Amino acid sequence: MFGVGVIGFGTIGTGVVRLLRESRAGLARRLGTPVRLVRVADVDTRRSRGIKLPRGVLIRDAHRLIADPAVDIVVELVGGIEPARSFVLEAIRAGKSVVTANKALLSVHGPELAATAEKNGVALGFEAAVGGGIPIVRTLREALVGDRNHEIYGIVNGTANYILSEMAAGAGEFSEVLGRAQAMGLAEADPGYDIDGTDSLHKLVILVALAFGKKIRPEAVHVEGIRKVGVIDIAYAKEFGYAIRLLAVARDTARGVEARVHPAMVPNSHLLADVSGAFNAICMRGKALGTSLYYGQGAGMMPTATAVLADIMEAAGAISDDSANRVLAYGQPVDGLRPARVVPMGNTEHEYYVRFRVADRPGVLARISRILGSAGISIATVSQHEARRRGSVPVVIRTHRAREAAMRRALVRVARLADSRAQPVVIRVEEGLGEQD
Amino acid sequence: MFGVGVIGFGTIGTGVVRLLRESRAGLARRLGTPVRLVRVADVDTRRSRGIKLPRGVLIRDAHRLIADPAVDIVVELVGGIEPARSFVLEAIRAGKSVVTANKALLSVHGPELAATAEKNGVALGFEAAVGGGIPIVRTLREALVGDRNHEIYGIVNGTANYILSEMAAGAGEFSEVLGRAQAMGLAEADPGYDIDGTDSLHKLVILVALAFGKKIRPEAVHVEGIRKVGVIDIAYAKEFGYAIRLLAVARDTARGVEARVHPAMVPNSHLLADVSGAFNAICMRGKALGTSLYYGQGAGMMPTATAVLADIMEAAGAISDDSANRVLAYGQPVDGLRPARVVPMGNTEHEYYVRFRVADRPGVLARISRILGSAGISIATVSQHEARRRGSVPVVIRTHRAREAAMRRALVRVARLADSRAQPVVIRVEEGLGEQD
Repeated sequence: MFGVGVIGFGTIGTGVVRLLRESRAGLARRLGTPVRLVRVADVDTRRSRGIKLPRGVLIRDAHRLIADPAVDIVVELVGGIEPARSFVLEAIRAGKSVVTANKALLSVHGPELAATAEKNGVALGFEAAVGGGIPIVRTLREALVGDRNHEIYGIVNGTANYILSEMAAGAGEFSEVLGRAQAMGLAEADPGYDIDGTDSLHKLVILVALAFGKKIRPEAVHVEGIRKVGVIDIAYAKEFGYAIRLLAVARDTARGVEARVHPAMVPNSHLLADVSGAFNAICMRGKALGTSLYYGQGAGMMPTATAVLADIMEAAGAISDDSANRVLAYGQPVDGLRPARVVPMGNTEHEYYVRFRVADRPGVLARISRILGSAGISIATVSQHEARRRGSVPVVIRTHRAREAAMRRALVRVARLADSRAQPVVIRVEEGLGEQD
Repeated sequence: MFGVGVIGFGTIGTGVVRLLRESRAGLARRLGTPVRLVRVADVDTRRSRGIKLPRGVLIRDAHRLIADPAVDIVVELVGGIEPARSFVLEAIRAGKSVVTANKALLSVHGPELAATAEKNGVALGFEAAVGGGIPIVRTLREALVGDRNHEIYGIVNGTANYILSEMAAGAGEFSEVLGRAQAMGLAEADPGYDIDGTDSLHKLVILVALAFGKKIRPEAVHVEGIRKVGVIDIAYAKEFGYAIRLLAVARDTARGVEARVHPAMVPNSHLLADVSGAFNAICMRGKALGTSLYYGQGAGMMPTATAVLADIMEAAGAISDDSANRVLAYGQPVDGLRPARVVPMGNTEHEYYVRFRVADRPGVLARISRILGSAGISIATVSQHEARRRGSVPVVIRTHRAREAAMRRALVRVARLADSRAQPVVIRVEEGLGEQD
């Protein structure tokens, strides 16, 4: 028999408890012995979660849970850095295998935790930390082990994708849609973690370690959220044959790891353009495998609980044949993960969509074009078909491939023009995301 | 050190040999010890595969390879039932772990082979048998272990999908496109296995065992290929908002397993409608997980070799900590797989697209409608906008949901009408494939 202790009895914790119950017979058959929920720890022991635990199972003290000899596997669902990190380290040092869904923690301390797990011969599983219902961690760790991945990118935040989808469907501007999503419980009261790209960043850092075997520092990654995207941008994108998605992108290049999180225009022909609502999708390109894509629920109680359960089963199986030391969190010994340089964003190249708002007067376009031209940025198309508003008009420019640093310098110069009426909205056009290669 | 022996030095075998070489360092780091190619057996030891094997590695005799004490893992890439089955059983009984890509063999003898592997405490891996570059076997076996899958369906044959995509892109009628695909090496000289649905059937039987834990008999599954699909049907589908794909579909229902392979109209809003060329995609619906989709190269040297390598690594890891007996081919002990009844096709229900070719004379439509009506089949739309041809016209009818048996009876009665000029083309319309649920 295996004993499981769950720290954090929130949404995911409740899902894990439910799934452990509902799948009891199947799990025992697969494992050859039952998996039992021994303890649940949460600071709130009173609130009803709509599920009845046997007397004495729910306790306040996580340390007591970790120390309980009947607990073989500790599931950390507290979130955030502390006290989650201390709980995980304490459990590992007590010889318990750990399953966590904590991407914030892993993006900063993942390799450290994995090294501690290795040293103590226990399993550390984090399938639930990226792409909830998408088994991307397992796939990278095991299925693609012989391949050399050179690109991984996708939609890894369901809340941001839901908001962009709703905006595209005519539900209103960003702030209205966000407000409604919050009212419906689809976005947090403090939505910044999702819509400003932080959550996507954390997941990207984990994916880079798994896919490329490289450690990057989250602070080195360029991150932009979706607050500035307007319905007008989505309409322009549609006209040009694109959908706007919040993407996390990483490429393993000779110059270092290119890693970035920002809204992007994705060609309608790309599968990612069809990923709507709270779904996630992750694309990969490998030398041997070519392109592959994994699509599913990005979050939510039961999808995430399914991922946690897969890790519990793996840890239990490994303990039962005394090979927990062989469950490698990153698919390889952690000292094989090499620190890598993130290519500075200024040194990357993109096609750009830029929406300026400028005074409606003669020569404006010429002045903007001159600035872009002198920065070496070549213009592909100019569009200007929205009616004026209080003397200002939007000018939409699409560029050919240009260096980010050159674009930034040009934008500063445009902002200094007497014609400028607002900060431009800049969205990168991802033509390079090859669906087939 | 682990020794690998590969039986069958064709395309996939060559890919496996290449990948074992190219990934040598990475594999050794992950495993803690090297994986070495010890023997390759093939009846043709002369043909150049563009890769040089060390002297003495390539032999003719597969039995000698299996018996070689330096071979720990036998990779079977012969294909077909015999002698592949004998090789696999011989290897298992000699205590070797086996990796195979042989879907024909597995669809008939999979559980028997898995049972023998269990009894002998060795691993049996077959990631490469379904969806080449898509790690669907691993995902079903491990990632979704706590979930209850109730539907699995998708595009599992790249050749058929390539032909349908080309037809949709204006490359000509079926036979022309097939001829060109054969000339390019994208379709076999004997294309029946791919385009008549047999390959999809084999994969579906394997997926049903993994996803539902149920054994079905291939002969009980309704299988139709794509030979009868015309460019005109693809055009009608487009007009109605659909794409035509060769689908393999299975549902786990209270009445038994619904399992079928046939061309189907998939709504354009569904991700499967965007899967073109030789790619595969498999969708799943689970109670906890909801919808997920896995997309990638369905076949080809290197994608399939990647899948074989993942299984080699799993077997090697398991042998190294003496737990090969815990690598369960179907994710559970094979006696947990229960024989299941396939719902007779006549008892299933679908929406239908039917293209009749009838004499161009008054009253035809009324006569067809009357037959459908008296069979209890309700018509949704009728279209008839193609010009006549030698006195006959196509009449395209879309029905509401109807029983297959009723539809078949009605078609027999329509065929008996003096107006009928050709066998109708029947394509099921898959409205029920919910992208989101």
